[in-house]
Amino acid sequence: MTHPVLPELPLGARVQDPFIVLEVEARGGDSPHTIITLGNASGRMQSAPFWPSESHKVAGIARGNVVQVIGTVSSYRDRRQLAVDSLRVLPREQVDWHALMPSVGDVGRYWKAVDRWRTDIQAPRLARTLGLFYDDPDFRDRYEQCPASLSGHHAELGGLLKHTCEVAHIGLGIGRLYPAADPDLILAGVLLHDIGKLESYRWDGVFEMTVPGSVIGHVVLGALMLDRRVRAESSMPCTEDELLILEHLLLSHHGKLEFGAPVVPMTLEAEIIHYADNASAKTASMAEALDNDENFPDDAEISARTIWQLDKRRAWRGESDWGVAPDSA
Amino acid sequence: MTHPVLPELPLGARVQDPFIVLEVEARGGDSPHTIITLGNASGRMQSAPFWPSESHKVAGIARGNVVQVIGTVSSYRDRRQLAVDSLRVLPREQVDWHALMPSVGDVGRYWKAVDRWRTDIQAPRLARTLGLFYDDPDFRDRYEQCPASLSGHHAELGGLLKHTCEVAHIGLGIGRLYPAADPDLILAGVLLHDIGKLESYRWDGVFEMTVPGSVIGHVVLGALMLDRRVRAESSMPCTEDELLILEHLLLSHHGKLEFGAPVVPMTLEAEIIHYADNASAKTASMAEALDNDENFPDDAEISARTIWQLDKRRAWRGESDWGVAPDSA
Amino acid sequence: MTHPVLPELPLGARVQDPFIVLEVEARGGDSPHTIITLGNASGRMQSAPFWPSESHKVAGIARGNVVQVIGTVSSYRDRRQLAVDSLRVLPREQVDWHALMPSVGDVGRYWKAVDRWRTDIQAPRLARTLGLFYDDPDFRDRYEQCPASLSGHHAELGGLLKHTCEVAHIGLGIGRLYPAADPDLILAGVLLHDIGKLESYRWDGVFEMTVPGSVIGHVVLGALMLDRRVRAESSMPCTEDELLILEHLLLSHHGKLEFGAPVVPMTLEAEIIHYADNASAKTASMAEALDNDENFPDDAEISARTIWQLDKRRAWRGESDWGVAPDSA
Amino acid sequence: MTHPVLPELPLGARVQDPFIVLEVEARGGDSPHTIITLGNASGRMQSAPFWPSESHKVAGIARGNVVQVIGTVSSYRDRRQLAVDSLRVLPREQVDWHALMPSVGDVGRYWKAVDRWRTDIQAPRLARTLGLFYDDPDFRDRYEQCPASLSGHHAELGGLLKHTCEVAHIGLGIGRLYPAADPDLILAGVLLHDIGKLESYRWDGVFEMTVPGSVIGHVVLGALMLDRRVRAESSMPCTEDELLILEHLLLSHHGKLEFGAPVVPMTLEAEIIHYADNASAKTASMAEALDNDENFPDDAEISARTIWQLDKRRAWRGESDWGVAPDSA
Amino acid sequence: MTHPVLPELPLGARVQDPFIVLEVEARGGDSPHTIITLGNASGRMQSAPFWPSESHKVAGIARGNVVQVIGTVSSYRDRRQLAVDSLRVLPREQVDWHALMPSVGDVGRYWKAVDRWRTDIQAPRLARTLGLFYDDPDFRDRYEQCPASLSGHHAELGGLLKHTCEVAHIGLGIGRLYPAADPDLILAGVLLHDIGKLESYRWDGVFEMTVPGSVIGHVVLGALMLDRRVRAESSMPCTEDELLILEHLLLSHHGKLEFGAPVVPMTLEAEIIHYADNASAKTASMAEALDNDENFPDDAEISARTIWQLDKRRAWRGESDWGVAPDSA
Amino acid sequence: MTHPVLPELPLGARVQDPFIVLEVEARGGDSPHTIITLGNASGRMQSAPFWPSESHKVAGIARGNVVQVIGTVSSYRDRRQLAVDSLRVLPREQVDWHALMPSVGDVGRYWKAVDRWRTDIQAPRLARTLGLFYDDPDFRDRYEQCPASLSGHHAELGGLLKHTCEVAHIGLGIGRLYPAADPDLILAGVLLHDIGKLESYRWDGVFEMTVPGSVIGHVVLGALMLDRRVRAESSMPCTEDELLILEHLLLSHHGKLEFGAPVVPMTLEAEIIHYADNASAKTASMAEALDNDENFPDDAEISARTIWQLDKRRAWRGESDWGVAPDSA
Repeated sequence: MTHPVLPELPLGARVQDPFIVLEVEARGGDSPHTIITLGNASGRMQSAPFWPSESHKVAGIARGNVVQVIGTVSSYRDRRQLAVDSLRVLPREQVDWHALMPSVGDVGRYWKAVDRWRTDIQAPRLARTLGLFYDDPDFRDRYEQCPASLSGHHAELGGLLKHTCEVAHIGLGIGRLYPAADPDLILAGVLLHDIGKLESYRWDGVFEMTVPGSVIGHVVLGALMLDRRVRAESSMPCTEDELLILEHLLLSHHGKLEFGAPVVPMTLEAEIIHYADNASAKTASMAEALDNDENFPDDAEISARTIWQLDKRRAWRGESDWGVAPDSA
Repeated sequence: MTHPVLPELPLGARVQDPFIVLEVEARGGDSPHTIITLGNASGRMQSAPFWPSESHKVAGIARGNVVQVIGTVSSYRDRRQLAVDSLRVLPREQVDWHALMPSVGDVGRYWKAVDRWRTDIQAPRLARTLGLFYDDPDFRDRYEQCPASLSGHHAELGGLLKHTCEVAHIGLGIGRLYPAADPDLILAGVLLHDIGKLESYRWDGVFEMTVPGSVIGHVVLGALMLDRRVRAESSMPCTEDELLILEHLLLSHHGKLEFGAPVVPMTLEAEIIHYADNASAKTASMAEALDNDENFPDDAEISARTIWQLDKRRAWRGESDWGVAPDSA
Repeated sequence: MTHPVLPELPLGARVQDPFIVLEVEARGGDSPHTIITLGNASGRMQSAPFWPSESHKVAGIARGNVVQVIGTVSSYRDRRQLAVDSLRVLPREQVDWHALMPSVGDVGRYWKAVDRWRTDIQAPRLARTLGLFYDDPDFRDRYEQCPASLSGHHAELGGLLKHTCEVAHIGLGIGRLYPAADPDLILAGVLLHDIGKLESYRWDGVFEMTVPGSVIGHVVLGALMLDRRVRAESSMPCTEDELLILEHLLLSHHGKLEFGAPVVPMTLEAEIIHYADNASAKTASMAEALDNDENFPDDAEISARTIWQLDKRRAWRGESDWGVAPDSA
Repeated sequence: MTHPVLPELPLGARVQDPFIVLEVEARGGDSPHTIITLGNASGRMQSAPFWPSESHKVAGIARGNVVQVIGTVSSYRDRRQLAVDSLRVLPREQVDWHALMPSVGDVGRYWKAVDRWRTDIQAPRLARTLGLFYDDPDFRDRYEQCPASLSGHHAELGGLLKHTCEVAHIGLGIGRLYPAADPDLILAGVLLHDIGKLESYRWDGVFEMTVPGSVIGHVVLGALMLDRRVRAESSMPCTEDELLILEHLLLSHHGKLEFGAPVVPMTLEAEIIHYADNASAKTASMAEALDNDENFPDDAEISARTIWQLDKRRAWRGESDWGVAPDSA
Repeated sequence: MTHPVLPELPLGARVQDPFIVLEVEARGGDSPHTIITLGNASGRMQSAPFWPSESHKVAGIARGNVVQVIGTVSSYRDRRQLAVDSLRVLPREQVDWHALMPSVGDVGRYWKAVDRWRTDIQAPRLARTLGLFYDDPDFRDRYEQCPASLSGHHAELGGLLKHTCEVAHIGLGIGRLYPAADPDLILAGVLLHDIGKLESYRWDGVFEMTVPGSVIGHVVLGALMLDRRVRAESSMPCTEDELLILEHLLLSHHGKLEFGAPVVPMTLEAEIIHYADNASAKTASMAEALDNDENFPDDAEISARTIWQLDKRRAWRGESDWGVAPDSA
Repeated sequence: MTHPVLPELPLGARVQDPFIVLEVEARGGDSPHTIITLGNASGRMQSAPFWPSESHKVAGIARGNVVQVIGTVSSYRDRRQLAVDSLRVLPREQVDWHALMPSVGDVGRYWKAVDRWRTDIQAPRLARTLGLFYDDPDFRDRYEQCPASLSGHHAELGGLLKHTCEVAHIGLGIGRLYPAADPDLILAGVLLHDIGKLESYRWDGVFEMTVPGSVIGHVVLGALMLDRRVRAESSMPCTEDELLILEHLLLSHHGKLEFGAPVVPMTLEAEIIHYADNASAKTASMAEALDNDENFPDDAEISARTIWQLDKRRAWRGESDWGVAPDSA
């Protein structure tokens, strides 16, 4: 089943499709009404107002529901909206989440890259330790769905796996420049650095923080998950000293105390992983900010406002062909 | 002519070689004497004390001189020193600086990489602009000697060129992950980002800051050099808008105001260059810190003190073979 | 032609005058309407709502337009507004901008001060270098219009020239206390310190940042302008060392890296210029904040909220006659 | 066997006792010599210099050794020192460490307090979880020796237990004021908050950081120890949710990210534990600083220099009897 | 006379009671109306809108007025509001403020604690100095009404006295652990530390800052009040040196310059008072935040947003019975 | 009596003069000896070592003594020193302190300026309030001696008065630019802003902090002194509101909490005084740093190290005649 591409639906288009309810807003003022925001993998659109007379239609609807909607694309002050004729909550088990949520798409290529890199690992105890996670179908199943953040960079299904590949690519690239850096350790650290996000985020319809994600944080959760998993083996797959090295890589990847790292990087591989993680997160944020037309109303060259994801910087869409066309002819 | 490898000279070894005078220390106390530190490309060694009776030997000797030394390696409190019999200042023009100063060694491979990357640039105006510097033999001659810092990362002859290659390697690698990033611009920004160091540093025997390096700084000096060079052409090799893009890349590469960037990165390429520059500088610093035995006296696993180059972190020489030997047999 | 003084127009007053469109707000809600903010040199006033039935009146109107308005001052909830009968965009070339924009008024007195100070300069090369700008009619023409900031201190036509005079007055005054300070250099630094704002701001109707202002910043733009102008002469009017001194004064005037100075002040004149610039900017901000009745609703003595321009301080209208009346009689 | 009280030994006193070697300093200069610092539970004293002719006496002596010393208290420039006649390293197993190291003294009263508080705990699962540590003789044995810091507050054998009691006393006192605070949880959090120091410090002669203490840190080590211990039980003594509460208390006790807390306090008990911990550490530091005559040379009222332990504050020995004597007589 | 308990009034309930006007909001939009917020000691409730036709009812009503209201509890979008039939401003002298404002309730127990602690003071000059304030009926009268903050912790009538008792309780508790701490001085410092709030706050209906509170601040105001009071005695009740000690305690209680302390704590008692003050303020804030259901909509476990009073932390209502019920049976 | 000009005394010069003992250093090492630093108004010079055989000569000599010295200027390692033949402590009452301590010289011109400015004050109550201090011979006597800092800017006798004049000059100059600024208030604030230094510093031979200066600080001490003095009058010379204005000026002059201001400037005059104070202090520091040859060894253009007084900046002695000589001939 194909879903409608929301940003491209013309006025008057008829929809008869499932959507996720991303927001429910009860608006006051003198003419109270409710507006809901509907989304699928292609984007999002607001509904036309539900006036008091129609309030039964949205009674009980909550954020995260999936609803079967029948309606028509209308317009209000130059902005498209969905005039909803009817709307019905679908049972969760009938929902094809992947088809409805923002997603990096097919994750096969990411797994291929990860698994190929893993075959390069020479050290048996390291390979075995990583295998506790990366050979576990259940882990893979959850890891390939988890977003890399709730609303920042790579905030989409599969975002964490995609981010992991970016960090590995960058980190291994940096490592190649410094002979003293152990590529196996870089890879291991990269593959483990964000596993704590599996227990920090929920992605069942909407992206949300779990209680452990709030009160422990994904950095320490990751260290606990690694520690528990390794010790759950009847015979530990690596030594205590080796586990210490891995836990240091994981715990230091935020680089500085004020960014939530309980310890700062103290090894070459820890330093590399920190910078690779940073480069992936920040460059992806910049790419997303520049790609988002909402930041550049009226074809502005400089973003109309400072952008939260870029630590309150503005972005610039400065472009040139550097003479490619006229000169290269 | 080969120079003695200072860290390996045995007690009693006889030297009859040129050295750079890296430091001249007049020590007071009750038995005043002078000690000089001599260096060549292999490292450094202190002289035995010159007592008042020998003070004529070191009269007029200054930091940065090259001196022909005859002497013997002796020992004092378990530390080797050079007992100097005679010492004579060499005329600067007779000195083979490269043989005497710390250096990255043959720079051919770095030029090869840089020039190969440059051939990938499609855009004619960009290539021409870069060529103003990178096709200029005089620029190349100075660029391949300049260190990347005075006493931090890559503080050796050729260090700037080596660092430039590392940044290009990392930056182009990051760029490959983000289709919106223009690899030509990344390369151009990398090749230009530190050109201001040519006017900020001196490397004639010792590494020192110039007056413009102190009072303008290498970031803005680089922008001025680029601006002047481009405008010195009878017909500008690129447009004003294109020059603006390059100057933004150069001026923003320190990333934050408090790190000396007059503007923060606002384009994808500027962001990438900043992170690549950072990754090269910080990882090199960590690698050097870990490699330096002086940081780990008595075979300590953790560095004995916090390390200035690492923003006052300690470093850890944690190692393991992860079972390679015993298990892989 | 005289323009109506907006803050003093009584209810029922009839206007038939040109205004700048300072803002266009499309307001949603249940009764969508548009409100525009009109301004002239005397202040600003909002229009009455344009309801959907009148939306043709404001179609195509944009920020920065000048419109000929016919209307009447009405009132809504104790606040005056302009009920617009008709409204017509004027061609830009017919607009007398100076009469419509906030302005410091006649700039003659400021030029008189600047030019008198310049005659005190003894050093011929310094005088000649300053003359490249201050004897250039085109430069003078733009400098006397440019504001000193977009919405902070001296944000009005001529504000930059007024601010320059304040800084010169304060800086020369400080200099008089320290014999080692060179008054010529102080003056030169003051006259050059903000020239980069000419290329950083636009003031054609509304005050806005240019692209170079955003991506290079006025500090470095100023240094580039100075460098280019001096080198554009067939024979440089000053030496390279002298240019370095001027560029240091210009580049360091923000005082600290985190305030956007690529280098910190390292000479006596640089220090003085920094403090004089600061004193003018901050004192003017405080004076404007205290003068603005909107900060003190209901005749409050303490401002009702923290004030952004004062780095989030509150202001106090504490007053007393200290006995002048009763005692001095 | 009683040990000599170092701060009170008169000139000429004869010692024939074991001491810990706290420092070995090889001093250069023109008359090279070695000085060692000897300590026992009462304090520390430097040796007279060992000149080259006596260097065999100190050959092989290292920090942390215990040596049997025969010597005489002599004086040098008004400072007492120990002129050592002979010195012999004692086998570690013969050493009575407690008699030689700074110590809080008998820890019985602290255990009594801890165990009494524990009996107040009503909740069975909480009591059982705490008992995993506090009923374990091995844990108690190590906990009652561990210092609370290496050179800051409570840096003595038993210091951690003493500090724990102080935090409990303060925390329970605060808790009494807020009915919503659960005293059982406060106590549990206090008893667990610093357990990570057991694996972070070594106290066998000298106080030193372990490798895990450096690369993981005592905060996260504590969480790992708790997690491992609870899961090591065949049936967990508490629920996962309850473990989460305890881990949050432990992980948040440093209060802010920049102080090394991976998460900030989010519950009432976490907040209380943080402030109680802080109050104990800082007040103890102030008490120690004021008690240390070295900070107040020449009977100064204000400390002669800023004190590192007090975050670079000075301390004031301002005193008064407030009229107790003259008035109350 | 009993006042209605606002949070518990059912729909349809009839009120005929005095209330404080806590806010008057004129709302624009297309149907302009006014809403007032009414409060009494039990809480607050908004009025139904006063439409233009009823605007005479609220003409002249201002924040801080007490009004006699006749009306009925109605509902609008699931939120209760008060439909006001009539409303009449009461003369200030007829108002029983205590019955109308949020309050800690009976302050007798707090005075009892304070006065009992005071009897422990041995030192006559200290007791006499404290007595200048705490034996002064006028001081007591104002002190027992003053809030401890305007909208943060203990923001209710009597809040300052309650906070003072908490700080004394905590501070004396800490002091008991450190024999060098003088409990008399701790108590004296606690009783004096916030007296400046008496001149910094107004609490006549609404809580507001006075002009001296804004332009001098309660810390220095307190020192001035103490200084003036002591010197107003014909013979000073303590010595100059003793006054200095008290003033230091008072002036340093905010702990750090950036928190508004003109000096940092330099004595043991100053340190203890600072931490006790902090612990009371922060723990009370956390307790209030956790108690406030508005922070936890939909029974959320984690607060829905960061909380200003907690320095932008979130709060967690994590709970467990730790097996009390099932296991203890 | 004229004192020898220490920086100009030739080798072999004979001295027979009084000096202040600025420092007494007992140096250890293998050949223990004592060196004292002697100073007079012209500068300072170290003594030759006092070996143990001469130690009786310096027995009992302490910092701050004035000693009558007979000796000869000798040299040691190119540095002049004073070989002391005999040395005798002078009774304090025989000492002409002014002739011996660094000083701004004749303070007449400063008083003349201050008193002339005061005559401009129109407001009788303001004049009378200032007169409480500035018409008090005892105040004037101490104010004209007090330094403006202990070792920073204007650290010399009379430095505070000189600094006060500079601040007045700058502040009145700034005030002239802003019509809303009251020059009387600026002057009053300037004259009062640092009066607290009178009780914060001692200048009897050496410059030192008093106990109140440490534990209250000069900012609040000044406010207390003003408050006490005004209230000591049988009838207050100004109103309470006017006193509040003056105290705000005094308390806010450090500008920011982290610089020790208990409140930030909230009036125009407070803002001006803060910037004028800053400009005087910082410019004087820069002038002193540039004037001090010790910062520029070997005729360096850039200071050899960062300078503490300049917040760790380096200073630059960049100079040029800008063509005055060659061109103006």
